[in-house]
Amino acid sequence: MAGEFDWIARHWCPAGPWPPHVVLGNGDDAALLQPTPGMALAVSSDMLVQGRHFLPDVDPEDLGHKALAVNLSDLAAMGARPLACTLALALPGAPTETWSAALARGFLALALAHGCPLVGGDTTAGPLTLSVTVLGEVPAPQASARHRAQPGDEVWVSGALGLARLGLALLRGEQSFSGPDADAARERLLRPTPRVALGLALRGFIHAAADVSDGLVADLGHICAASGVVARLDAQALWQCALASALHRLPASVAWHYALAGGDDYELVFTALPAQRTAIEAAAAHAQTPVARIGRIEPGPPASHPLTDGTSRVQLCDAAGRPFDLPAGVSLAGFDHFATMSA
Amino acid sequence: MAGEFDWIARHWCPAGPWPPHVVLGNGDDAALLQPTPGMALAVSSDMLVQGRHFLPDVDPEDLGHKALAVNLSDLAAMGARPLACTLALALPGAPTETWSAALARGFLALALAHGCPLVGGDTTAGPLTLSVTVLGEVPAPQASARHRAQPGDEVWVSGALGLARLGLALLRGEQSFSGPDADAARERLLRPTPRVALGLALRGFIHAAADVSDGLVADLGHICAASGVVARLDAQALWQCALASALHRLPASVAWHYALAGGDDYELVFTALPAQRTAIEAAAAHAQTPVARIGRIEPGPPASHPLTDGTSRVQLCDAAGRPFDLPAGVSLAGFDHFATMSA
Repeated sequence: MAGEFDWIARHWCPAGPWPPHVVLGNGDDAALLQPTPGMALAVSSDMLVQGRHFLPDVDPEDLGHKALAVNLSDLAAMGARPLACTLALALPGAPTETWSAALARGFLALALAHGCPLVGGDTTAGPLTLSVTVLGEVPAPQASARHRAQPGDEVWVSGALGLARLGLALLRGEQSFSGPDADAARERLLRPTPRVALGLALRGFIHAAADVSDGLVADLGHICAASGVVARLDAQALWQCALASALHRLPASVAWHYALAGGDDYELVFTALPAQRTAIEAAAAHAQTPVARIGRIEPGPPASHPLTDGTSRVQLCDAAGRPFDLPAGVSLAGFDHFATMSA
Repeated sequence: MAGEFDWIARHWCPAGPWPPHVVLGNGDDAALLQPTPGMALAVSSDMLVQGRHFLPDVDPEDLGHKALAVNLSDLAAMGARPLACTLALALPGAPTETWSAALARGFLALALAHGCPLVGGDTTAGPLTLSVTVLGEVPAPQASARHRAQPGDEVWVSGALGLARLGLALLRGEQSFSGPDADAARERLLRPTPRVALGLALRGFIHAAADVSDGLVADLGHICAASGVVARLDAQALWQCALASALHRLPASVAWHYALAGGDDYELVFTALPAQRTAIEAAAAHAQTPVARIGRIEPGPPASHPLTDGTSRVQLCDAAGRPFDLPAGVSLAGFDHFATMSA
C-alpha cells in the first residue's frame, strides 16, 4: 500500500496551511473549495503527453512548471483569478526521488506563486502524461470570451510572438546559435509565463480574448469565427511591435512563420474598443506586461460552429490597407492534432 | 485546422441549451459556471489508461461511461451534486466515426442522466488515455469526508461487494461460467453505477464516507487512518448482507478475496451514529440502493498522514467479537500502482 500514498505525501503535499478558500484539501475522494459568492467559476483542462508536448529528456522541473502554466494561461484569457488545480499523472514506472522532487518543485512553485493550490488528482501507471485542471473565478460580466469581439474593436497582443517556436527550432537543431536570445527562446518554450496578472488587470476593459497556444492566426481566427467577424492586422505594427526581437536575426520568411503560426507562446490576444486604449496601456503597465496594438476587427461572415474557418478570417494589410504579401513559403495554417496524427 | 474541431463538434457537443448554471460552455479557453451561492465546490480528477484500466478491445461506449462514472463516484462519496465535467483525451490516431460516436454516447448519456454537462477538455495525440475532472456542490457542513469517522459509529456499505472483481476474473478467464450472474459481474466492471443518488440522500446523516474503488479494506482503511480509528467488521454480516450474491458460487477463499480486496465496485462505504439507522435506511430506500450495516468504529491510533497503515486498522470479527480467521491465502492488501509497476 505504502508506495503511492507515501510518494504523494513526500512530494506533492507542501507544509503549511491551506488558503482560506480550501475547505478540504487533497487526500479525500474530492477536494472542497468555497468560491467567493456570486463569482462565476472558470474551469479548464489541458493534457501534456510525452513525445507530443515534451521530449523524454525534458527537465522535470520545467515539465512541472509548463503543465500548470499552460492551464493558468487559459484562466488568464478569461480574466479569472486562479483558485485551485488538480493533476492526473500517468507514470511509466516508479520514478526516482530526484525526478519526482523536481517535477513537484516546478509545479508547486508556480501554483504557490499564483495562489492556486494543488487540491487533488490521480496517479496511475502509463505512458508519461500530465493532465491538469485549473479552477478560477471571475465576475461573469467581466469575463472575456472568444465570441465577444465586435466590429470597431482593436486587436492587441501581449509580449512577444514566435519566441517559443524559435526555442523549439533551437532544440530541434533547425536553428543554431547561442547567447541571450537563444536562452530566452528556450526559456519561453520550456517555462512559459502565463499572463494571469494581465488578464486580471484587463478585466472589464476588453471584449474577446484567447491565449496564443496554437499560433496567433489560429487563436485569433477562433475569436473571429466565434464572433462572426474578421481581423485585419497591420503587418508593420505586428513586425515592429509584437515579434520577439530575437526573430529579427532570422530570414523574414522564417520570422513571419514563427510569429504567425508558431504555438506555445502563451501570450494573450484580445480585442477592445479604441476608447479603452489608455486603460489597456495602464493595465499592462500595472501587470508589467508589454502589449501592442496590431489591427482591428471588421464585420465578417456569421459566427461558425465548429470553428473551421478561422484562418481565412485573419488578414494582413500594409500601412495603406492593402493586402500584405507574406514571403513565399509562409503558411498561415495552425496546428491540428488530427492532421498531424494521420500524416 | 478542421479535423479536430469538427470532430469535437460532431461527437461531443449535444444539441440543446446548457443548464442554467452553465454561463459559458465548451469552445472557449475555459468554461464558466455559476455555482449556487454559499455551496462548497467539490472537485475530483481520475485518469483511465489503456492496458491499465481497460483493455484495447473495450467497447468504446462502456469506456465513455466508465470514465465519467468513476469520477461521479467520488462526488457521491462527498454527498455532492454533480455540476459539470471536463475530459482530456489522448488518442493514438484519428479515430473512426463509429468508435468516436460510441465513446461520446457512453460518456454523454451518463453526463445527461446526472445533470453534469461536459463543458471543456482537451484532445491530443498519445496513447489512449481519458482524464476526467468532475465538479459538484454540497453544503460544506453536510459534506462527508474520510477523516470524520468517530468511535461509536457504525460501518455501512452500499450494494454488493466483489462483483466487479468477478467480472474481471471472467474477462481474464480466471473464472468461467455464464448466465445472469456472469452478465451482472461484467456489467458492474464495465459500466459501474456511481452511487450519486445515495450520496445525496445520506447528506447530513453520516460522518465519513469513501467510494470503494480500491477494495473495501483499502478504502475503509483510508477512512480509519484519516480519522485515527479502527473498524471492526462483522464477518457474518459482511458475508450474508454485503457480498454480491454471485460470489456465493465461488470457493470461500476466492469470494472473501474478491469482496475485501477487489476494487472497481464503486459502492459507498460510510460511517454514522447508531441513532441514524432509521434515517439511513429511509435514505437508501429513497435512492433505491441497498445498504448493509457491517461493523463498527472503535478508538485507534492517531490519524496518520500519509495513510500508510490503513490495512491493519480494519479487522474482521465473528459474532462473539473474536478475530475471524479468513480462509488460507486471502490477502487484505489493497491495490498499489507503484507496487504493481515495479513488480
